[in-house]
Amino acid sequence: MVTDKTQGARRRGRRPGGADTREALVNAAREVFIEQGYDGATVRAIAAKAGVDAAMVNHWFGGKEGLFGEAVLKLPFNPKEMVEDLLAADPDHIGEAVVRRFLTTWDSTGGGVFTALMRSVTSHEEAGMMLKDFFFKHIFKHVIHKLAPDNYDLRATLVATQLVGMGMIRYVARFEPLASTDIDTMSAAIAPTIQRYISGKVD
Amino acid sequence: MVTDKTQGARRRGRRPGGADTREALVNAAREVFIEQGYDGATVRAIAAKAGVDAAMVNHWFGGKEGLFGEAVLKLPFNPKEMVEDLLAADPDHIGEAVVRRFLTTWDSTGGGVFTALMRSVTSHEEAGMMLKDFFFKHIFKHVIHKLAPDNYDLRATLVATQLVGMGMIRYVARFEPLASTDIDTMSAAIAPTIQRYISGKVD
Repeated sequence: MVTDKTQGARRRGRRPGGADTREALVNAAREVFIEQGYDGATVRAIAAKAGVDAAMVNHWFGGKEGLFGEAVLKLPFNPKEMVEDLLAADPDHIGEAVVRRFLTTWDSTGGGVFTALMRSVTSHEEAGMMLKDFFFKHIFKHVIHKLAPDNYDLRATLVATQLVGMGMIRYVARFEPLASTDIDTMSAAIAPTIQRYISGKVD
Repeated sequence: MVTDKTQGARRRGRRPGGADTREALVNAAREVFIEQGYDGATVRAIAAKAGVDAAMVNHWFGGKEGLFGEAVLKLPFNPKEMVEDLLAADPDHIGEAVVRRFLTTWDSTGGGVFTALMRSVTSHEEAGMMLKDFFFKHIFKHVIHKLAPDNYDLRATLVATQLVGMGMIRYVARFEPLASTDIDTMSAAIAPTIQRYISGKVD
């Protein structure tokens, strides 16, 4: 929604850095990501299509991954900020940090967004295909490459099995009691699994 | 498809116990389960609709759950046999038995059936709703009630998170390397998780 036109363009005919710039970037990004895929789409091309300066992508979304997360995946969090938070956590409690972050993020959306994401994956839609590359390259790998002793890729996909499954059962299939279990209990049960997949023995 | 009409009905006008009986039961079951839900549908009602003796349900499917698995979920295994196999496994290696059974079953179908199941869950179709009740009551609970020290329902749903997630990543999203990892490696990585969820410390 365009609500702020008061700033006016600053130079070279760019749109202002306000809410309309943000909205233009989201709309342009959706088109460019669908056309070019995640890797093929450049910040420069998206900004050009939106008619704004490329620096606005960093300003509003923290980079290409944040723009993708919001424009295409409609994620309820900024992926770059999430990675930074996880990298700042105590490595001996990274499993707990991941589980708590996952649940607080998705619980707050009521699970509808997670269900939509999974539906796109099971339907093999374009967004679903991009989702895989995106999470793998821009969330799991950053965290796991820093903490894992070896087997980075296997570890990343093992973490994915437990997180996707937790979301499927809690938000999509809604099996009780897990769908209503409080975050402390969920963390006590599942954090040791994530901890082992990231930094423990997996083979 | 009705292919065998040579046997003729045996008594009280029932159809013969051959392939056409089996097919008639599958077709009748699909209708009755959709109309009545899993719990509401009776073997007697399904057999009556199929025009066969209720004993044929046990003969061909080992009971209501096997008929449901084949007629509605189109599972590539008989759930009653699977539960029996798992209950016969060494309790100290039940995690490994579950992971190996899951992977050998679904790997052999190429994952298409699992994808279809997950699509029905994410789309909230009738079959998806019944899938939840079915797996929970007729597979997880039998195994977990025998082996778990406490917290049966939480444990069952924890197992579900890891199995559903493993299937989502291996068969639906197909994240590498996990999608192609051999069963021994998968079991070494994931069996300890299932073992703990069934009989270890979860809170």
